Amino acid sequence: MLRFECDYGEGAHPRVLERLTATNLEQTPGYGEDAYCAEARELLLSVCAQNADRADVHFVIGGTQANALTIAAALKPWQGVLCAVNGHINVHEAGAVEASGHKVLALPACEGKITAEQVCEAVDAHRRSSAREHMVQPGMVYLSNPTEFGTLYSRAELTALSETCRTLGLLLFVDGARMGYGLMAEGNDLTLPDYANLCDAFTIGGTKVGALFGEAVILTAPMLRTDFRCLMKQRGAMLAKGRLLGLQFLALFEGGLYFRIAAHADALAMRLHRAFEQHGWPLFFNSRTNQQFPVASNRELAQLAERYAFEEWQRMDEGHRAVRFCTSWATSEDAVDALVHDICSL
Amino acid sequence: MLRFECDYGEGAHPRVLERLTATNLEQTPGYGEDAYCAEARELLLSVCAQNADRADVHFVIGGTQANALTIAAALKPWQGVLCAVNGHINVHEAGAVEASGHKVLALPACEGKITAEQVCEAVDAHRRSSAREHMVQPGMVYLSNPTEFGTLYSRAELTALSETCRTLGLLLFVDGARMGYGLMAEGNDLTLPDYANLCDAFTIGGTKVGALFGEAVILTAPMLRTDFRCLMKQRGAMLAKGRLLGLQFLALFEGGLYFRIAAHADALAMRLHRAFEQHGWPLFFNSRTNQQFPVASNRELAQLAERYAFEEWQRMDEGHRAVRFCTSWATSEDAVDALVHDICSL
Amino acid sequence: MLRFECDYGEGAHPRVLERLTATNLEQTPGYGEDAYCAEARELLLSVCAQNADRADVHFVIGGTQANALTIAAALKPWQGVLCAVNGHINVHEAGAVEASGHKVLALPACEGKITAEQVCEAVDAHRRSSAREHMVQPGMVYLSNPTEFGTLYSRAELTALSETCRTLGLLLFVDGARMGYGLMAEGNDLTLPDYANLCDAFTIGGTKVGALFGEAVILTAPMLRTDFRCLMKQRGAMLAKGRLLGLQFLALFEGGLYFRIAAHADALAMRLHRAFEQHGWPLFFNSRTNQQFPVASNRELAQLAERYAFEEWQRMDEGHRAVRFCTSWATSEDAVDALVHDICSL
Amino acid sequence: MLRFECDYGEGAHPRVLERLTATNLEQTPGYGEDAYCAEARELLLSVCAQNADRADVHFVIGGTQANALTIAAALKPWQGVLCAVNGHINVHEAGAVEASGHKVLALPACEGKITAEQVCEAVDAHRRSSAREHMVQPGMVYLSNPTEFGTLYSRAELTALSETCRTLGLLLFVDGARMGYGLMAEGNDLTLPDYANLCDAFTIGGTKVGALFGEAVILTAPMLRTDFRCLMKQRGAMLAKGRLLGLQFLALFEGGLYFRIAAHADALAMRLHRAFEQHGWPLFFNSRTNQQFPVASNRELAQLAERYAFEEWQRMDEGHRAVRFCTSWATSEDAVDALVHDICSL
Repeated sequence: MLRFECDYGEGAHPRVLERLTATNLEQTPGYGEDAYCAEARELLLSVCAQNADRADVHFVIGGTQANALTIAAALKPWQGVLCAVNGHINVHEAGAVEASGHKVLALPACEGKITAEQVCEAVDAHRRSSAREHMVQPGMVYLSNPTEFGTLYSRAELTALSETCRTLGLLLFVDGARMGYGLMAEGNDLTLPDYANLCDAFTIGGTKVGALFGEAVILTAPMLRTDFRCLMKQRGAMLAKGRLLGLQFLALFEGGLYFRIAAHADALAMRLHRAFEQHGWPLFFNSRTNQQFPVASNRELAQLAERYAFEEWQRMDEGHRAVRFCTSWATSEDAVDALVHDICSL
Repeated sequence: MLRFECDYGEGAHPRVLERLTATNLEQTPGYGEDAYCAEARELLLSVCAQNADRADVHFVIGGTQANALTIAAALKPWQGVLCAVNGHINVHEAGAVEASGHKVLALPACEGKITAEQVCEAVDAHRRSSAREHMVQPGMVYLSNPTEFGTLYSRAELTALSETCRTLGLLLFVDGARMGYGLMAEGNDLTLPDYANLCDAFTIGGTKVGALFGEAVILTAPMLRTDFRCLMKQRGAMLAKGRLLGLQFLALFEGGLYFRIAAHADALAMRLHRAFEQHGWPLFFNSRTNQQFPVASNRELAQLAERYAFEEWQRMDEGHRAVRFCTSWATSEDAVDALVHDICSL
Repeated sequence: MLRFECDYGEGAHPRVLERLTATNLEQTPGYGEDAYCAEARELLLSVCAQNADRADVHFVIGGTQANALTIAAALKPWQGVLCAVNGHINVHEAGAVEASGHKVLALPACEGKITAEQVCEAVDAHRRSSAREHMVQPGMVYLSNPTEFGTLYSRAELTALSETCRTLGLLLFVDGARMGYGLMAEGNDLTLPDYANLCDAFTIGGTKVGALFGEAVILTAPMLRTDFRCLMKQRGAMLAKGRLLGLQFLALFEGGLYFRIAAHADALAMRLHRAFEQHGWPLFFNSRTNQQFPVASNRELAQLAERYAFEEWQRMDEGHRAVRFCTSWATSEDAVDALVHDICSL
Repeated sequence: MLRFECDYGEGAHPRVLERLTATNLEQTPGYGEDAYCAEARELLLSVCAQNADRADVHFVIGGTQANALTIAAALKPWQGVLCAVNGHINVHEAGAVEASGHKVLALPACEGKITAEQVCEAVDAHRRSSAREHMVQPGMVYLSNPTEFGTLYSRAELTALSETCRTLGLLLFVDGARMGYGLMAEGNDLTLPDYANLCDAFTIGGTKVGALFGEAVILTAPMLRTDFRCLMKQRGAMLAKGRLLGLQFLALFEGGLYFRIAAHADALAMRLHRAFEQHGWPLFFNSRTNQQFPVASNRELAQLAERYAFEEWQRMDEGHRAVRFCTSWATSEDAVDALVHDICSL
């Protein structure tokens, strides 16, 4: 069985494991106060073209943690976070935002994306209402890029959202759980320095892009930068042997490994993308990143399922459904060759 | 200016004030442990055809408190509450449910109402999903009756919801902020004993039906009945001079005053309802309770606004909008006579 | 039975009820946006020698609400509130502060009071520790004045606390549930303008000083003054018929009624104080306010209990215990005459 | 510099790393639903002499998570957790318990331990009080074993606590962050099956005993066993590549490695213990586990600090302080030889 159902099925890129093994018996201070974490923070700042005066970098274990922490740090008790209705925090984090006391204010989304205009309207509806004091006040905009559907915000779109947020006094937070796959995608025009300039907070995901686990949280808004580590500790997000996170990000970003393995996954995904198109399978979302969502007949999918694992996404009609194929840093050319061949032979 | 814009503009029914005045200098224990509260609890239990073995009655100050407390008492930390998208807890309580850590799981609504079938589907989607552990689990169904739009659930509809909840292991909670106006409405077929039998918790609103303030919370589910008063105290809902609540409910329910004044408001509302219809104004919702929502031309509404206060509800098109007129226990026949006359003369 | 066991046994001062009755059928906007609330806010600002640029006044129903709201508005998620170990929020509010996510950092207290020095030390221990990020960070100092034991902070003590808080970047919040009894006490040297100048937030209690219910929250710190009403609504502290609060504070503060009735209670309490002393009963706390705590023999207390209600406080030894006698705005000279006479005759 | 200042300075026991490396490129389901986690759960159940009908095992990343999750799963909103005043959750988890809405009810402790009798008294004080509804209700007892000071509860003491909890309707939770060091200590008479029988929940710590990270949470109380994984996800404690936890516990418990490496650390700690005693340094706590707390003169400590790292604990007087030396699975005989020699030569 060749597996394409998710992008976190394997462990870590071998370079990551080597690094952990090589340093295993060193003694370092705990909780992220070691030299490896310091070095990794500097490296990420430089990749984002920032310095320590303008941004902080924190390493946490997973995406739900990264999101919940950043949102909790940002919002006053009566504020909520604007988000696409299918945004990860609204559907697949088990109510983590609400558990910290805040409402997710869900907006209708197009291919998983929301617009600056929608943010304006929503703020208007909550803030200018005569019932203002009876309504949750928007305090932040959350979006994921790539989205949950593999689609991408353009530089123009993110800029518009950023300007709107600044005008309206909202913070802008981008969940980059699949950041690498977005950065290296065909047609992407956003860079890490762009994120650092346009957002108040964003994450660079390691879990799905080569690490055993780990997300880097980049904070640029001054109000987020005070005592964030206290919040990390309180929410169980401060790893005792914090260096494990620093070491992994060092392994991934030294020499640009992160970008190369992400480009590898994207290229393989686009091979699938084109194979689906050539075979006449519509693509449910216009994704150029590592997740692809073809719509196919149940019959053909059943055949494919004998040899390949993929994820059910959505029933379309009696005879068809959309499914998800993921590639990752760990996907081999051979596996994609086989899959493409078998699609063509269906 | 004759005011129809809400149902809480005046103070209390004179009988309520008389009762407070007559007992003012008596010394009683605080926090609802006085004899008046005890008597009022018994009276409400008897009106609901329950006894103290089967239900508890608590008095709190306002509706947001009543809702937030009952929901917080019911849910485990990872559970949420199913609710119509326009339900009060989802839009007009400033995130009170989320502030206690729980997600409001909003369902599309028809005239403010949700159905047993929708509840089934939603539970299915959250509970049977392979992503179950990543999703908020429904633990309760919240509905308001009358709804925020003045519409009513029938006995059959509430029974279906109750049966569905019991089958699925959810609690059913009815927000009765305007309970009196629902009970006395044309076509209503639900009684207080029905609520007590069908629901795990429901409220009988005083604030909008003759009291200065006060909601009675009736709890029938055993799991809600333990230490509810601890929760009341913790959330600031335990009135030091608790007797003020007991006395008001005594004044309203002794001799059935609550029902008579609610019937009065409903009858006046239906006079408006018919006047709107006769004048050719469509009714935006099919309400037979004390809130009426005609759609009229901006021109005619402007004329009316010179003499009458009413609430903007929704813009319909260039030239029309829906508005809300409320009657209450305090609305006079004369005010309705004048309004009906002026509508006919437009 | 003459009752001295608490200061909230009766309803309201007759002037308060008159005011509510006289305005009962007026129609006003809800939620505290009426003219009476506006007038009451101005009156309180003027009594505190503040103007609306420098302070906000909000009316809430009870003390637990007032405390929980102000603390929730002030603290970041990882911050806690310093407080005397026997402070009301630490022992008798059922965990209201923790329910909003914050730790009460309890300090040992002398006669219910804490000192500027203790605050310094506690901040030092939490902030300068190498384990800083593992510890709750102090964000506010809470104290009650009069304390739960009837004792008072002097102007010098409150000034020292205020200066310490400002130096250390903490907010200072005074719970004035019995503010009137403190202001009018023998030896008190604090005024309402002092509170407004020294504190970031404080309350002026109505519930125990003549109102049916109601606490005025005075906020001077800019960071507390944004969207406080959203928080009030969210926590169920925004009264629908908000004018009931405005009207009560108008009745109490117009013409200085609040101060006169508080002085009356204090004077009666000091008659008891002296009677206890003359009879040779030690006073457990050095209170000059409306609560008095004599230590007496079980035998004498049993005799007294036949005719007077008072509260058990603490067992001292085999044969003695401390008890609490309260006076209030509602206590009559006659009741105190009788009690003093009976003490002397024991 | 030889480091004795903590027990989490190194990475993992080599066997753990080998296991992670060997399986690195396998593809498994995420979130702990893989075969390695299943196997590790079974192994831990068998080590605890339980079966899956009677207990659940969950793997989380760190101790703060394990504690916060278990406590949040156990308590109703108005309940708190009884705990030694110096218990980890009360001082060094940055308010994690309070962040989930619950008060830590701190009890005075002797050598870090609390007694069944104290639990009885505290429950009495909160539950039987006339002010019961104004007080946080105890719902759980938390203790750590070994304690933060290296001391141990005996079987008799834990049994008494367990019986008291069952009688009083409290849950008993033992934080076993250093479980291995407790189990293998001289004089310990508790076994893992004892914990499983006496406690409603307990943890077996991996982070400090050979793992890169990871705590096993064993739940025996039925009310804790429903939907615990939903809570894990919500609080960011569900590792995407969950197998990393399963694999580590497999490596540690197959063949009893966990017990052997813990015994190694305890034996080295006792060599230090005896060296301190022989040198005439009093031991601040009576620890027979991997943490040792000698009291020494500043002068001698300064000499030692030139070659050894240890942790400051507490200033005793002008010239003396208590310090902490930790051993761990990673400490070498040689390092202890050197330290013992240098102590003797002081």
